[in-house]
Amino acid sequence: MKNTNKANLLHRMKIAKGHLEKVISMVEKDEYCLNVIQQTQAVESSLEKVAELILENHLKTCVRESMESGKNIDEKVKEVIEVFKRK
Amino acid sequence: MKNTNKANLLHRMKIAKGHLEKVISMVEKDEYCLNVIQQTQAVESSLEKVAELILENHLKTCVRESMESGKNIDEKVKEVIEVFKRK
Amino acid sequence: MKNTNKANLLHRMKIAKGHLEKVISMVEKDEYCLNVIQQTQAVESSLEKVAELILENHLKTCVRESMESGKNIDEKVKEVIEVFKRK
Amino acid sequence: MKNTNKANLLHRMKIAKGHLEKVISMVEKDEYCLNVIQQTQAVESSLEKVAELILENHLKTCVRESMESGKNIDEKVKEVIEVFKRK
Repeated sequence: MKNTNKANLLHRMKIAKGHLEKVISMVEKDEYCLNVIQQTQAVESSLEKVAELILENHLKTCVRESMESGKNIDEKVKEVIEVFKRK
Repeated sequence: MKNTNKANLLHRMKIAKGHLEKVISMVEKDEYCLNVIQQTQAVESSLEKVAELILENHLKTCVRESMESGKNIDEKVKEVIEVFKRK
Repeated sequence: MKNTNKANLLHRMKIAKGHLEKVISMVEKDEYCLNVIQQTQAVESSLEKVAELILENHLKTCVRESMESGKNIDEKVKEVIEVFKRK
Repeated sequence: MKNTNKANLLHRMKIAKGHLEKVISMVEKDEYCLNVIQQTQAVESSLEKVAELILENHLKTCVRESMESGKNIDEKVKEVIEVFKRK
């Protein structure tokens, strides 16, 4: 992964982690359930964006190399489909 | 798309359509709400599988050709990411 | 379900069915894969909205009655959670 | 929230946080993209389960009280539907 992409990803993931820590403290302080759910879902969305950025990078590098060389194409496609299914 | 894949897809889509028609008649007959939701979600799952099969085919054909030729790679990757985001 | 809600639901479901029929004809005509996926996902979104409207009605009627009477509350809550999980 | 439920939730959330920290270190070590995506999606699933448990508790307490007292029912139902939509 390019260094700029990697730095961007790590930045996003650390923000998501900080956000999750705040949600944990919301539960400790007995805040209103629905606010906790909403913030939990916001952390999930941040992680979803992270997964999306990694997938984009993966398609432009590993999958591309596989397709250019004609090697392991079925395996690479299967892996991408698995990511899609788990979403 | 290969003819076998296309026939398989059309078969699945027509089954989903028949299923949806049954769900419509469940609503007309005032069946229990949660059964209707469950069957609606089952139709959605069938369509999700259809989208997944088309995506698999797309990766193995259009995306592969783009990557082999080095043409429109960013555009093709962007399109795949859009499919992932909308899921 | 109130008649207005039921009519609204049936209207939405029939539009979704018509939309699905168009997507089937897109596959028959070999239209561009990604357009087919996009339209398939649009049908799924319409069905998702249908599920959401039925759930809303269900909470305001069946779940409410259960909670007012104190009967079957655990079962009703479990059913709603199942809908949430399958989403 | 009952103390046992709260302790269970906090336990799950702290495990999810530890998991996320491991995923961050996977990115720092340049591990295979798809493994990182898979683990990111696993953290999301854990958070999804957390949201589901809070929603279950919310239905059995706040929503139930609202429905028993006949107060703010529309508002409570709307909030639950919002959770469902954001999923």
